[in-house]
Amino acid sequence: MMSDFSAWTQACQARIEHVLAERLPPSDIAPKRLHEAMRYAVLGGGKRVRPLLAFAAGDVTGAAVEQVQHAAAAVELIHAYSLVHDDMPAMDDDALRRGKPTVHVEFDEPTALLVGDALQSLAFDILASPGLAQAASTQLAMVQLLARASGSRGMAGGQAIDLANVGKSLDLTELEFMHIHKTGALIRASVLLGAECGTLSEPARTALDHYAKCIGLAFQVVDDVLDAEASTATLGKTAGKDAANNKPTYVSLLGVQRARERALELRADACAALDPLGPSARRLRELADFVVERTF
Amino acid sequence: MMSDFSAWTQACQARIEHVLAERLPPSDIAPKRLHEAMRYAVLGGGKRVRPLLAFAAGDVTGAAVEQVQHAAAAVELIHAYSLVHDDMPAMDDDALRRGKPTVHVEFDEPTALLVGDALQSLAFDILASPGLAQAASTQLAMVQLLARASGSRGMAGGQAIDLANVGKSLDLTELEFMHIHKTGALIRASVLLGAECGTLSEPARTALDHYAKCIGLAFQVVDDVLDAEASTATLGKTAGKDAANNKPTYVSLLGVQRARERALELRADACAALDPLGPSARRLRELADFVVERTF
Repeated sequence: MMSDFSAWTQACQARIEHVLAERLPPSDIAPKRLHEAMRYAVLGGGKRVRPLLAFAAGDVTGAAVEQVQHAAAAVELIHAYSLVHDDMPAMDDDALRRGKPTVHVEFDEPTALLVGDALQSLAFDILASPGLAQAASTQLAMVQLLARASGSRGMAGGQAIDLANVGKSLDLTELEFMHIHKTGALIRASVLLGAECGTLSEPARTALDHYAKCIGLAFQVVDDVLDAEASTATLGKTAGKDAANNKPTYVSLLGVQRARERALELRADACAALDPLGPSARRLRELADFVVERTF
Repeated sequence: MMSDFSAWTQACQARIEHVLAERLPPSDIAPKRLHEAMRYAVLGGGKRVRPLLAFAAGDVTGAAVEQVQHAAAAVELIHAYSLVHDDMPAMDDDALRRGKPTVHVEFDEPTALLVGDALQSLAFDILASPGLAQAASTQLAMVQLLARASGSRGMAGGQAIDLANVGKSLDLTELEFMHIHKTGALIRASVLLGAECGTLSEPARTALDHYAKCIGLAFQVVDDVLDAEASTATLGKTAGKDAANNKPTYVSLLGVQRARERALELRADACAALDPLGPSARRLRELADFVVERTF
């Protein structure tokens, strides 16, 4: 029998897929090829970890899923745009993503560039839709939070640091600084944006913020372990590319065994942060397990 | 003696330069190279036509320049990001912009990609700053307006249509459809966002919207004439590249003489739309002249 958690994740994934399919422009209106490529980039793939975190955080603050789903879609679109640009020849030059040819391979490079650009715009369009939070001023703060998590002091900045580090030896502090930007900022935004759709107290914000920071790092540690150990077929994207690109990773710094332990420590820290929130944080706890125990 | 209009444009240009310099992250904080490249892409160049339109539209609705300047900066950052991505090898592959090497030439391609991405995020960060409009709900609508003007049914969509049209013969209707998206959407956003910082009545919105659509097209007609006639040195960007790229333009469709006449007709239409607004629309009228009479 399917566990309650599995049923919940599947329901969330179906919901976010539906919202994304509705909010992405249809591929029969102009510019058709761009719209087709945007839908190709976003729909039908991925674990939707960021939307799951947003829904779980919304549970803590009593947010309505009908509102959280738009915040979740906005974050997922930012994530999707970053993958499209990241895979381009000027960056990682990768041909495979989520088991399918990457956008610049399936379409072409100019289209991939515009797909990423337009997905970012669409994320802010959706996050600014009327009525996502109880007050318009809260929602403006949500827009600013996502913009900062995406920009040069968030995700895009993390990618710049990553590029600058290729072939360099980093210590753990420098590696974590990179990941806090590259992956962590958007994971944190997922949690906080989901929570902001409900009634978020200051102590709850502090707890969720700490949880999100730990989960963001744990997510990256696990990703590094997966990249080092899994096959391309299982992963749905090119495996072993960090080592091939001579990129520093948790595995290259700590070894696989110690990296796994680090992921478990981060999970424990994340869950400890949730203690004051009681049973409303159940899905967030389950997601912490899910992130760390991803099978491969 | 400097004309009153020249003094006004110079004051607006100095103001927007100051706001952009303040809101762009300093190049001495990490990631330094990305921040340096963002500042390189944005500061010290361009006529700032979009900010000028925002300030002029703010005059109509009694908006405070201290508020309009942030909306103006947001639009200018979207424009700047589009130039950086447009110049990349995957798109127009251009080496010169505003008389300087383009970002991917001065820095590198991955940096140019991230600069564009991060400038777009920064635009929404700034537009969501507290207190730009009288009501937070108005400001949310402003965020959505800019997102739509930038995205696949606005500027990015126009670029996709432009790419799809290379080497094709278009009629005037198809050419205008492309430009309404590629340039027109952001010009329209400049005018409406500036106006939304004040008190915008429905009749004024309709008038400004019509003005903006005419000016957006006029701007593009003049750009095509400039591209066909000016030298690279005068233009500060590669001249004659539309013809070299076999791109349809107003000049290729209408010839230079008829294209100039079309620009004058559009200016007349734009100014007629402003009639109900009286003297408060003076700067918008002067900008219509400025756009059409750019010297070359």
